[in-house]
Formats: sequence, C-alpha cells, structure tokens
Amino acid sequence: MKRRQFLAGAAGAAAAASTVFSPMTIARNKKFKLGMVTSWPSSIDTLYGTAEFIGRSIEYATDGDVEVEVFAAGEQVGGLEVYDTVSSGAFAMGHTASYYYIGQDPTHAFFTAMPFGLTGQQQNAWIEEGGGGDLWNELNGRSNLVAFLAGNTGGQTGGWFNKEINSPDDLKGLKMRFPGVGGQVMARAGVNIQNLPGGQVYFALERGVIDAADWVSPYDDEILKLHEAAKYYYMPSWAEPGATLGLYVNNDIFKDLPKDIRETIPVAARAANERMFAQYTARNGPALKRLVNSGAEVRTFPSEVLDLLKQYTDEIQQEHADSNKLYAKVYEQWQGFRDDVRAWTDVSEYNYLRYINGDLS
Amino acid sequence: MKRRQFLAGAAGAAAAASTVFSPMTIARNKKFKLGMVTSWPSSIDTLYGTAEFIGRSIEYATDGDVEVEVFAAGEQVGGLEVYDTVSSGAFAMGHTASYYYIGQDPTHAFFTAMPFGLTGQQQNAWIEEGGGGDLWNELNGRSNLVAFLAGNTGGQTGGWFNKEINSPDDLKGLKMRFPGVGGQVMARAGVNIQNLPGGQVYFALERGVIDAADWVSPYDDEILKLHEAAKYYYMPSWAEPGATLGLYVNNDIFKDLPKDIRETIPVAARAANERMFAQYTARNGPALKRLVNSGAEVRTFPSEVLDLLKQYTDEIQQEHADSNKLYAKVYEQWQGFRDDVRAWTDVSEYNYLRYINGDLS
Repeated sequence: MKRRQFLAGAAGAAAAASTVFSPMTIARNKKFKLGMVTSWPSSIDTLYGTAEFIGRSIEYATDGDVEVEVFAAGEQVGGLEVYDTVSSGAFAMGHTASYYYIGQDPTHAFFTAMPFGLTGQQQNAWIEEGGGGDLWNELNGRSNLVAFLAGNTGGQTGGWFNKEINSPDDLKGLKMRFPGVGGQVMARAGVNIQNLPGGQVYFALERGVIDAADWVSPYDDEILKLHEAAKYYYMPSWAEPGATLGLYVNNDIFKDLPKDIRETIPVAARAANERMFAQYTARNGPALKRLVNSGAEVRTFPSEVLDLLKQYTDEIQQEHADSNKLYAKVYEQWQGFRDDVRAWTDVSEYNYLRYINGDLS
Repeated sequence: MKRRQFLAGAAGAAAAASTVFSPMTIARNKKFKLGMVTSWPSSIDTLYGTAEFIGRSIEYATDGDVEVEVFAAGEQVGGLEVYDTVSSGAFAMGHTASYYYIGQDPTHAFFTAMPFGLTGQQQNAWIEEGGGGDLWNELNGRSNLVAFLAGNTGGQTGGWFNKEINSPDDLKGLKMRFPGVGGQVMARAGVNIQNLPGGQVYFALERGVIDAADWVSPYDDEILKLHEAAKYYYMPSWAEPGATLGLYVNNDIFKDLPKDIRETIPVAARAANERMFAQYTARNGPALKRLVNSGAEVRTFPSEVLDLLKQYTDEIQQEHADSNKLYAKVYEQWQGFRDDVRAWTDVSEYNYLRYINGDLS
C-alpha cells in the first residue's frame, strides 16, 4: 500500500492520538510524529549528533511525512532508561548502546562491545551480514523492540591513569571509572570500580577520588579535559575494540508504519553508522596529537596484563553461557564468526598495517 | 519548498521531457525517473547489488516519487564510460570507481585506492570528514558531477600467482592482469601488464596467457574460480588497501531536484557504503577458508618486494604532482591526513590486532 493511501485511510482514526510526543501521532496534517529518546548529553556532538542526523535523514527522506523529535538524556527519561522506555511504547524510538542493559541480560554486551572481541568493522560485518542481526532481534524481540546498527566509535583507548601499569599487581586496589563488561573484568583483577557519569570524571580524577578512568577516545576525552587530570594514556582498548550504537524502535509502532517508512528508517540508521565511525576515525588522530602536545604520555599495556584481563573475560563469558541459554547461543555463533573474520583480517588488513609500520619481516 | 509544491509547479513543463530513460522526466504522474548506469556485471552481487540497494533505498524513501532504473555494464553504456555518460547528462546517476578514470586525470586514483594508501575505514574518514570530500568535488565539478561515497571492498589481496615471488627479480617479465595505479607500479617493476575484463581472467590464467592476476578478494575471486587456475594467493593488497566506489550525479540534474531528495540521495549512498563494506568483511573469511581447503596456498610478499613497489609508487605520485596542480593539492592534503589518521590507527586498532595475534611484546 502506498503511504498516501495509508495516510488517507488512517485519517479517521487520528482523533484518538493527540499528545504531541506520543509514540505515533496521526495528526491533522496526516503526519507521523516519532519521538526519539537518547542516552547522550546534547554537548557530545559525535553521539547526540548521530541521533540528530538519523532524525533529520528520516524527515528529509519522507519529505516531512515523518517528523522526528530527538531528546537528550534526561530531557524526557534518563540516559540509561532508553531501552525500557521504547519497549513500553512511551516513545517510538531510542538511540543508545546495548551494553548499558547488561544488568537486564548480559547478552546485550555482544551488540555494543565485548572485551577482546570484534573491531568496529568486524562488528558491522557480524550484525549486518554475519548472523548477528538475527540474534540481536531475538534478544530485542523479548522487549518488543527491533534495532538497527546506528553508530560506531571505532576502537577506543585503554583509559587515563595516574600511575603506570607495569604488571597485574599495579591494578590491585586501583580506583577506576570503568563501565560495562570491561569494568566487571577489571573488578576481577582487583580494581575498585567507581561508576560515574561523564560529567563527573574530570573532577574525580583531578582530586584523586579515582586513580584512572575509561571514557571514549581522544576526540571525546579532550572535551572532558581528561589529559589535564591524568598523565598516562593507555592503549589499546582491550574492552571496547569497536563500540556499536543502536537505533531501537518499538515493534508495535514499527510494524504499523507504511512499508516505505519501515524501509527508510534502517537506511538512515546505516548511514549514521558509517558517518559516526568516519567522524571518530578522522578526528581522533589530530586530537591525539593535541593531547600529546599537552603532555599526555601514551603507553601500551604489557602483554602480561592483557593476558590476565583476557583470562577473566573468558571466565565471565563462560559463566554467563552456563546460566543463560540465549547468551550461550549467541556466544557460540559469535565465536565462529570471530574466528572466520579474523582469518581474513589477519592476512589482509593486519598484514598491511604490519608492513606500513615496518613490522613485516 | 516542499516536494509536492515543487511537483505541482513543475507539472506544466512536463511535456518537454518524455523519453523513458531520460535523465529526469517529470512524467504525468509527477514522478522523477532517474537512470543509473554502472560499471558492474549483474552477476557480481556485491558490486551490482550495491547499486540496486541505492536505487531501492531512494525509491522507498521517496515513497516512489523517485523511480531509479539501474543498468548493468554494457546495457546502456560500457562499464568504463559511466563517468562521461553522467557528466554529459545522458543519465542522471552512475555507480562506478573513480580510478577507472585515471587516464583522464590521475587525481582520480585518490578517491578509490592509492597503493600503500588508506585502508577502507581511513578512506571513509578522509572523504566524509577529513577534507577529501571537498577535493573530490573540486575534481568532479570540472565534469559537472557531484559524487558520494557508495561502497567499499575493504582491503583486497595481492593477487593470484603461478610462481612464488621471493625477490623483486621474480616480478621481471611476469605477465599479469593488474588494473589502475597498481598496474603502473608493477609495470615499473618489470611486469608485463595485460588488461583483461574479469570474465576473461580465469581462462587466460589457466592457459598460461598470463602468469598472475589481481581481481578483488576471496568472495569475488571464488566466483571467478581463480583458485582453480593459480596456486599462490598473495597478501596483503599493497595496491588497494580499501577500494572505494562512488555514486555520481549530474550536477545540473541534482541541483534542480527538490531539497528533500537532494538530502536523501547521499543518505542512501552512505548506507550502501556501510553495507557493502560489511558484506566483504563478513564473506571473505569463509570464502578464504574454502579457497584454502581447495588447495590455494596463502603467501605474504617479502618486505623487499613491497619496499620496491612502495618506492615506485612514491615516484609515480611525485611525477603526477609535478605536472598536475590539482593532483599536487590533493596529494599534499592527503599526506597530512594519512599521517594523522595512522598516528591514531597505529596505537589503537593496530595495537589491538597485534595483541590478538600474539605480536605485542
């Protein structure tokens, strides 16, 4: 059915829905109004800007037949309530990161970032083409949601530290801001995990309330001025090698949209996914240069430390797989994909980077 | 101006444009018909499928107000005539690779793949966010075109060989299919370059007319059965570390489209860019496994060979920069971006891959 016909047919039912920010309002002018809640402060142009790009793209594509209102974290609901809010249908769409919801189900971690897991490009490949998308839908279907890839930070960093990490012992008793599965792994290594919102990280680090903090990568870290509060900038990001964001849509609302709009929303999300990944890739290099010029000292974690964190990651993954059937199913499929994609990445891009770096002997 | 108003206003002029596949027809039903010529045989689902995805996405987004007809190579014009055809306005859009047109201007090479240049993700970052897009528009503006990123193969391979390459001397006199700048570099190393369409590569290799051939990467190479005609599969792709495709639109046609459609076309192209890159990343791993199981032997080029090819690449780039002002301008900006982005990639993703591969000491 064509959208115009659909709209004409639905016009008679318009009176029932009149709240401005209701999930889907068939208003007098026969438009859809879709609210999008997000996990991002409006000051973070990479993250919040991606949500705005999606909204704008949908509006342009539909010539304004769909109007999207984007809300920063806290404007309508808290930044970590996005999933449940869209699940309930209170808002039609949400832009967030799956791993904020590992408390509800640890399976969510796969769809943002798994320590020692997939890079950003491998994550795109898994979810778009490698079977991950179906598994993500299985998880989201339990909450009456459909989701689409909608942003990637690329590889992040290992975080800011006020002391050097030369052995696993240096982690013990360290007070560190570290969210998600990475934080769980660090806790097992003896780190005292403090969960703080982004806006409090600088002061906590500067005043010695915490010794270390993981945020995102140079471009975003510079905005928080973390280089003025800590000295050592550790690489690589073992915990978030390619953090992925999602656009979530309430399934009842989604399935009632005309087909052309249902097809258009994931195209906008995909475009946003590519755009945000490109932004981080382009901006982090110059930002890193500025941070180093301001005194940040780049360090690489010793293999011995990474080996231990890898061991704890494997343990945690196995524990979840033993107690959660969907986790076990995703874990098995994900491992097969990971091994296949690495077999290709290792001979192609990794080999290329080795040559470029003078490491191909 | 809203699209509906635009269409109503333009309706009176519709009689002037009536050819079905004319670049832009304001037909009786007030629709835009845009033809898209491509460089791809319809059998190659990754490449031709990307063009189809773009067309379909535009149609859905506009609820059919824009109708896109996609043509395989040769259906309307030859696969390497896409750029000129769209430049002339004979067709509104084209899906092709910039480096097919290095004969017209060597500057085109930057926007698909430069030997020893940017990876796929770095290429996205440069063109979308790192200043490359403006330079690309400067080049394309000379031909009355605008272009958008619209596909990436990711890293390719070094090609198929029927003899091992253990030193630069092994390249001398080798007969090889190798297009683009990579072929020019190989020619300087003493390789006898044969340019053959994809469909002829297998037989030429199998019958010994050529000794080696560069095509794409495992998924596409398997379709051509190159593993049945050659033994050694060389890595990495020094010539095409992230080959990028473009959607080209005739600028006279583009600027006369309503704003919402002008905004929608690049969103569809961006989504296609992400989708195709994900396809190659996901499919190449399993394809590589099948090729190896069928007897292909994976080899890595000796550094000594790559060093020589790198030297010739630098020479060729400098020669072009000395004789072509736009090339020189792009080359300088590109080098600055390349150095910045590598400073980030090296400490983040490359460090991560080194750990994953047991190479981080």
